[in-house]
Amino acid sequence: MTETPSAIRTAVPLAEVLRGGRVESIHFGSVAVVDDSGSILLSLGDIETPVYPRSTTKALQALSLVESGAADHYNLTDQELALACASHRGEPEHAATARQMLERAGRDEASLECGVHWPTNAAATRALAATGIAPCALHNNCSGKHAGFICTACAENIDPTGYISPEHPIMQRVTRTLAEITGIPHTAANRGIDGCSIPTYAIPLRALALAFARFGTGKTLSSDRATSASRLRKAVAAAPFMISGTGGFDTRVMQELGTKAFTKIGAEGVLIASLPQTGLGIAIKCQDGALRGAEAAMAALLRRFGGSDFATNPVLNDLTRKELRNWNDILIGEIRASAHLTPVSEI
Amino acid sequence: MTETPSAIRTAVPLAEVLRGGRVESIHFGSVAVVDDSGSILLSLGDIETPVYPRSTTKALQALSLVESGAADHYNLTDQELALACASHRGEPEHAATARQMLERAGRDEASLECGVHWPTNAAATRALAATGIAPCALHNNCSGKHAGFICTACAENIDPTGYISPEHPIMQRVTRTLAEITGIPHTAANRGIDGCSIPTYAIPLRALALAFARFGTGKTLSSDRATSASRLRKAVAAAPFMISGTGGFDTRVMQELGTKAFTKIGAEGVLIASLPQTGLGIAIKCQDGALRGAEAAMAALLRRFGGSDFATNPVLNDLTRKELRNWNDILIGEIRASAHLTPVSEI
Repeated sequence: MTETPSAIRTAVPLAEVLRGGRVESIHFGSVAVVDDSGSILLSLGDIETPVYPRSTTKALQALSLVESGAADHYNLTDQELALACASHRGEPEHAATARQMLERAGRDEASLECGVHWPTNAAATRALAATGIAPCALHNNCSGKHAGFICTACAENIDPTGYISPEHPIMQRVTRTLAEITGIPHTAANRGIDGCSIPTYAIPLRALALAFARFGTGKTLSSDRATSASRLRKAVAAAPFMISGTGGFDTRVMQELGTKAFTKIGAEGVLIASLPQTGLGIAIKCQDGALRGAEAAMAALLRRFGGSDFATNPVLNDLTRKELRNWNDILIGEIRASAHLTPVSEI
Repeated sequence: MTETPSAIRTAVPLAEVLRGGRVESIHFGSVAVVDDSGSILLSLGDIETPVYPRSTTKALQALSLVESGAADHYNLTDQELALACASHRGEPEHAATARQMLERAGRDEASLECGVHWPTNAAATRALAATGIAPCALHNNCSGKHAGFICTACAENIDPTGYISPEHPIMQRVTRTLAEITGIPHTAANRGIDGCSIPTYAIPLRALALAFARFGTGKTLSSDRATSASRLRKAVAAAPFMISGTGGFDTRVMQELGTKAFTKIGAEGVLIASLPQTGLGIAIKCQDGALRGAEAAMAALLRRFGGSDFATNPVLNDLTRKELRNWNDILIGEIRASAHLTPVSEI
C-alpha cells in the first residue's frame, strides 16, 4: 500500500467554490514562491515532496529547440516557438502551426508520437466533426512541443523516430536541461509517463518554482540559455493565443501582461509562473488535480507577487474571483481564491 | 469572508490517482452509511454539515411523478421513469425518450426550462455537430427530470410554466417530498440554484443517506410512497442506460446489479446508493467536487456494504481500481479507492 505523501496531509486551501453563499467544494494544495537565488518567499503545504510537473515544464523542454540552433536553422516564428511551449486546444490555428513546424523539418504528422485526441476546445471539436474529418496528432494539445522535438532532431540530422523514449538523444538532451535548471536529478527513480508518452519527472515544488524564477531573470543560467529563455518568453508574449487558446488561463494572462508574466498550466492541477519584474517563480500543485483551483490561486498570487501594477489588474481580478452561471445564465455562485492568498491589504 | 466548513477540515481520503507508482493526486471527502432506522454504520468526515445533494436526489424528486398518478395517467414506460431519475448524457435515445414524455403531456421541448447544452457524451456531441443541427433542451442532462415535472403538472391540469421556481405548485410538492423523506426542512435558508435552474437544498450527508436507505426498503414511508419508490428502482434496473448512458457509473452499476443497488451521481462530487438487500443508504461528498474520487470510493463501499455477493463482483472491482491509459494506450497509472474504504478482509 502506497502511503499518503506528507505533501497531501499539510495542504492548505487554494480556492473555494460557492453556491448560494455556501461553500460547496474546496481545493487544497501547496504553493512555493521562490526568488532566482533560491530564497523562499512563501511556502504553503509541503514544497519538498516531489510532484510531477506535467506540462508546466514545456517552456523548459523547448529550451533545447532554441539552444541547439534548430529554431534559427528553421527560422521559427514567434507563433511556432509559442506553440512549442503550449498545451493548446486544437483550434485550427494551432493545428496549422504544428503542421508548419513539421514541414520546415521536412516532416508531417506521421512523425508525431504524442497520440491522437479530439481538440480540447469544444467548438473546435464540433467544427471538425461537422467536416467529417477525423482528428490527427496535430490536434493533440502537445503537438507543438512534439514538433519542436522533431525540429531539434532533424536540424542536427538525428533520426527523430522514438523521440518520446527517455533513451533517445533528443529526450536525453531535454532531460539534462530540466535537471540543470531545476537542480534535481532526473532518473528512472522519479520518472512517470505523461499523457503524450514522453517522460515526466517528479520534482519538489520548490525546485519547480526556482527553475521558473531563473527562466524569468536568467540568473545562474549560461548566457546562451538565458538568451534562449528570454526569446521563448517574448515569443509567447507576442503570440499568447498559441500557448493555450480561446479562454485559456495562460492565454488570458499573457494577452494582458505580455512579457511581464509567463504562466503555464499542467495536468492534475499544476501551475507555474515566471515573473521577471520581481525576479520570482511560483509553483502550485492542487492536490486533487483540479486546474480550476490552481488557476484561481495563481491569479491571487500574481496580484501579490508580480509587481505593483499586477495588484489592481482587472484580468487578474476576474481570474481570482470568477462568477459561475448555469445553463440559463443565472448567477449561481462563484469560484474564488482562498482569502489567505490575496494581497494583505485586501484582507 | 465565509468560513471553511468543518466538513472540509475533517475530510478523509476517498481515492488516490497514481502515476508511475507515485500518488499524483488525492481526493478527500465525507461518507455516511446509514440504515433505514437512522442508525449510522459508518461516518467518515463530518456528515452533519449541510451539503448540496445536487442531482443525487432526482429519484426522490421523481416520486411525485408516480405518487400523483401522472405516471399511470400517461402510461409511462420503464425507460421514461428511468429518464426522470437521470443525469443522462444526451445520447439519441435519451433525447428521444424525453421528447416522448413531453408528447404524452401534449408538450414539446419549448416547455422545458432547464436550458440548453451540448450532450455530455462526446460521441453524441460530435454526431449532432456532424448533422449541423444545434442542440436543444432535450439534450440537457436533466431533461428527463424536467419532462417528469411537466407531466406531473399537465396530468393535474396545472400550467407547468415557471415550474422551476420554488413557488410553483409542482416544485412545492417535489420539495415537500424531499423534506419528508430526508427529515430536513427545505426552506430559503438552505436553498441554492442548481445547474438546470431548479432549487437544490443543502442537507446533512447523514440525512441524504437515510433518505436512500428508506428509498430502498420503504421503511417509515407511506405504502403509496414505498410502492412508488420500488417502481422507480425497478424502472431504472430495467432501463439502466437511461439513467446515465455509455460508460456512466450509474449505468454500469445497475446494468450489473439490477434492483440490488440504486446509485446516482450528482454534480460537485456527490454520490448516493440505496441498497435494498442490506437495508442501507450511502452518501458521499468529495470535497473538491470530483466525481472520479466519489465513484472509486462508492464502488469500494458497495463491495463492503451491498451484500455478500457484491464483495467479489468484477464490475465493482473494476470501478474500485481503474487503469489509466494515455493517448497511445500506454498504462500510466490508476485511480483507486483509498485502502481504508475497502472490505476489512482485503486490508
